Amino acid sequence: MELEEAIKGRRSCRDFLPDPIPEETIEKILEAAIWAPSPLNSQPWSFYVITNDEIKRKIFDETVRCKEWAREVSGWKWLGGYDPGFLKQAPVMIAVVANPKGTGVDMFQEEGNMGYIQACAAAIQNMHLAIHALGLGSVWVTFFDKQPMREILGVDKNRVPLAIVCLGKKASEPAAVPRKGLDKKVTYLR
Amino acid sequence: MELEEAIKGRRSCRDFLPDPIPEETIEKILEAAIWAPSPLNSQPWSFYVITNDEIKRKIFDETVRCKEWAREVSGWKWLGGYDPGFLKQAPVMIAVVANPKGTGVDMFQEEGNMGYIQACAAAIQNMHLAIHALGLGSVWVTFFDKQPMREILGVDKNRVPLAIVCLGKKASEPAAVPRKGLDKKVTYLR
Repeated sequence: MELEEAIKGRRSCRDFLPDPIPEETIEKILEAAIWAPSPLNSQPWSFYVITNDEIKRKIFDETVRCKEWAREVSGWKWLGGYDPGFLKQAPVMIAVVANPKGTGVDMFQEEGNMGYIQACAAAIQNMHLAIHALGLGSVWVTFFDKQPMREILGVDKNRVPLAIVCLGKKASEPAAVPRKGLDKKVTYLR
Repeated sequence: MELEEAIKGRRSCRDFLPDPIPEETIEKILEAAIWAPSPLNSQPWSFYVITNDEIKRKIFDETVRCKEWAREVSGWKWLGGYDPGFLKQAPVMIAVVANPKGTGVDMFQEEGNMGYIQACAAAIQNMHLAIHALGLGSVWVTFFDKQPMREILGVDKNRVPLAIVCLGKKASEPAAVPRKGLDKKVTYLR
């Protein structure tokens, strides 16, 4: 698939078929991830490919718990209608776990280290684009508390679970979400 | 360009020709950026396209200041040899400034809001891929302190300058940086 088509045609998919995804396909997606750039070539990512039903259920339960908690704190009414059912549907989840020490000089700076998050997010975006080019659907999930997710995945306290990429065959074609135009987003300093 | 070629062929370029880049090209790159996904479709990015020589010089000076400061704090000897001269060479810089409120439910969570950083980094990765597909070179710079960068760009304290993308025609072909294989980075939870 052409790059432009991949970037502009990718949609967030929350409706999956249960069909399993071959491991060769997963590897292609992960190969795309690791070609992202990172500060000082730190490659601060690790990937947990989840097809185990019990772990998937725990992740679903954690999102439901988080949703109830967040609804109370935020006062956001729409959260009541938020249905994380796609977490049960997706045949594969890939959790992206970061090493906060895999960052640049920002680790010494007053507003904290963000380089490692940027690198992992670049890897995640590569994955979404590769998933789309393979004809599959995916969604970028950050709706969980980090400590419970560490426990579910079995990762150390010094690692940060940043996101879960749910993927699979699309059960329906997701609609495009509108974007604000460049006139609202760009300032030229000529 | 094919997606896979764009992802695997992109390199960080730190050696630019001074040739100006047409605004239509810049717009294509920014169009790629805004098709990144974001939490709750918050689109928490704004872009400052810098071709003004004085602003470019201030950014260079800030990096040099930051380098001296960081060398002392970090004790990293290689920083002494780090040459940010490419910041003077690049005909265009695009500063990516984030709105930390453009994040997901993570804004209420104990380990802070990271969704907005992930979204902006996805937009930045789209830009790098688009730049590469256009036959140009680019590099992802996070080597600056945020408050001085706010002052240089003229942005509010409630915004976060996350990165600067330097871009232009390549003066030389950058080498590939090796990646750790999937066997070092992937855990299967079957």
